[in-house]
Amino acid sequence: MPQYSEEILIEALSRFFKPHPRVSVGPGDDATLVTETIGREIVVSVDSQREGVHFNFDILDLKGVGHRALASALSDLAAMGAEPLTFLVDLEVSENFTPDQGRELYEGFYDLGRDFYISPSGGNVSVGSKLGLSITVVGEVPRDRGLKRQGAKEGDRVFVTGDLGRTLGGFKVLTNQDVASKVSDDSKSALREKFKRPWPRIKEVQAILRECTPSSLIDISDGLGKDLCHIATASEIEIHVQEEKLPIHAAVYELTKHINQSSWQICVASGEEYEIAFTLPEDQVERLNALELSVPITEIGEVKLGFKPAVVLHKRDGEHSNIHTMGFDHLLSRSGSSKG
Amino acid sequence: MPQYSEEILIEALSRFFKPHPRVSVGPGDDATLVTETIGREIVVSVDSQREGVHFNFDILDLKGVGHRALASALSDLAAMGAEPLTFLVDLEVSENFTPDQGRELYEGFYDLGRDFYISPSGGNVSVGSKLGLSITVVGEVPRDRGLKRQGAKEGDRVFVTGDLGRTLGGFKVLTNQDVASKVSDDSKSALREKFKRPWPRIKEVQAILRECTPSSLIDISDGLGKDLCHIATASEIEIHVQEEKLPIHAAVYELTKHINQSSWQICVASGEEYEIAFTLPEDQVERLNALELSVPITEIGEVKLGFKPAVVLHKRDGEHSNIHTMGFDHLLSRSGSSKG
Repeated sequence: MPQYSEEILIEALSRFFKPHPRVSVGPGDDATLVTETIGREIVVSVDSQREGVHFNFDILDLKGVGHRALASALSDLAAMGAEPLTFLVDLEVSENFTPDQGRELYEGFYDLGRDFYISPSGGNVSVGSKLGLSITVVGEVPRDRGLKRQGAKEGDRVFVTGDLGRTLGGFKVLTNQDVASKVSDDSKSALREKFKRPWPRIKEVQAILRECTPSSLIDISDGLGKDLCHIATASEIEIHVQEEKLPIHAAVYELTKHINQSSWQICVASGEEYEIAFTLPEDQVERLNALELSVPITEIGEVKLGFKPAVVLHKRDGEHSNIHTMGFDHLLSRSGSSKG
Repeated sequence: MPQYSEEILIEALSRFFKPHPRVSVGPGDDATLVTETIGREIVVSVDSQREGVHFNFDILDLKGVGHRALASALSDLAAMGAEPLTFLVDLEVSENFTPDQGRELYEGFYDLGRDFYISPSGGNVSVGSKLGLSITVVGEVPRDRGLKRQGAKEGDRVFVTGDLGRTLGGFKVLTNQDVASKVSDDSKSALREKFKRPWPRIKEVQAILRECTPSSLIDISDGLGKDLCHIATASEIEIHVQEEKLPIHAAVYELTKHINQSSWQICVASGEEYEIAFTLPEDQVERLNALELSVPITEIGEVKLGFKPAVVLHKRDGEHSNIHTMGFDHLLSRSGSSKG
């Protein structure tokens, strides 16, 4: 049983953050107040990470746990085209959790949060058996500009930010010594980095929105197959993806020489990537390509009419695969979790 | 392992709710959108309830778990003077959790939520070992009218809504057969009712705010002693409470004939009451007393200057007790949880 009170823990954790100027009441009161927003909508999302379900300490340290939990929640704001304002942390700790461990966890929040000028403005601590974090993020978006999953139209092009597959690849090299021993150090490092420190594409989406109007947009948390299926279902269209266009990292190609899965399978099934997939009317593609961003944006396919929602992968060998179920479903797979 | 997907669960759970008109994007997208608020501040709070920590199924059914979890979160909005708009549910379920159980849980949300015209607008499901709920509530308050813990001044009177002590009393009769057998059925029923179905004082606070301006306000989640101490600390004053003025329910008096604690001890230490304690300048007391509310409001003491924050109970026998530590500290007691 901890020999300190929750006040000491929260005090220790809050000390190295500066509040966002829009947050008028933060830690230490009953709730968080975010000041008035004219012409804007408030965006709220919640995401959780639990020891033994979403992570374990064999493959991630406390700082990494904090980083990934916040990244996951922020990615939902990116998926709405929102900019973050603040976040709240509902923390479940084990009996022997120490303030030092709390600080390590919060360092993960800090490293990521400072890039977006945000800090925790409230929360909750309870003692349970394992570490669990439920993170509520609050952001804002110009009125009626919130990006949704519905809206993709026939002829729209499909894009994705960054590269795909390294999260699942990183998980494999972190959990399978035999595989890890066969992969080069550079590739292992590239795979692990994406698994341990994904970066939500808040800024990239903002940059895209300054020049373009995506017809639908989602973050890749479940896996490209399942997440494109969310767009296909909400928009009532088919999405067709070309295998040769998928932005697969070289490290994933190297990894798949040593495992019984192809690179496209890893790419399509890899969840918690926190890249962004979106559809764009064809007449905006030139403007998109003229953007200079810190990560590449790759056209991977197009939107077609269809009798029922589908995501079809056209493979190099001329075959095609239905990939709409490829990715996580937490209740079935016991890995990852799902938005509602 | 459940034989259904999270989509089926979420679909089942969302079906019997109507969205609040201010919620423009709700379940089924990446985040919740709340439309523009001119002259208002958005209030966000998170609270959790975990099986084995905050409740167990010996004393509470699933509907009761849902009710109490949402009541607890809404009470934080009441404590800011806010009106609720919507809520998000981060749900951890065990492997054998069924959609029917989900519906029972959500019935508890429904019974309480419809009184405030709110419904769940998003969330998250993950599979763990036990049931856990982390509820994020979103509300609003007129700009600069958010009620804080600081602001109590010398001479202010101290008030509390409803009655106190039945939550802890209810817990005792629910967990101790011997005690329960000695208490009358009417009293047992009154004690259990408050434990199982506390009602957040959203409407009462709104009614108070229409006529009065409390100098500080808090909800009683930790216990009267600790929560008044939060006001005393934030406001840098002493609070003096008179035992004979405490609004203790007759059932609590009956209970304490059979246990080794006095009625004032139960009253002061009872957490999760979700009543409201507040301080009011003396010149507003008449206006407050003229209000007609559905629950009584009782003056229990006054604010005094002091060298350091304190909460002092003046007892009937002429003695006084420092009660500022009476209540829950979750990390120390393993019962209840604490806000940060």
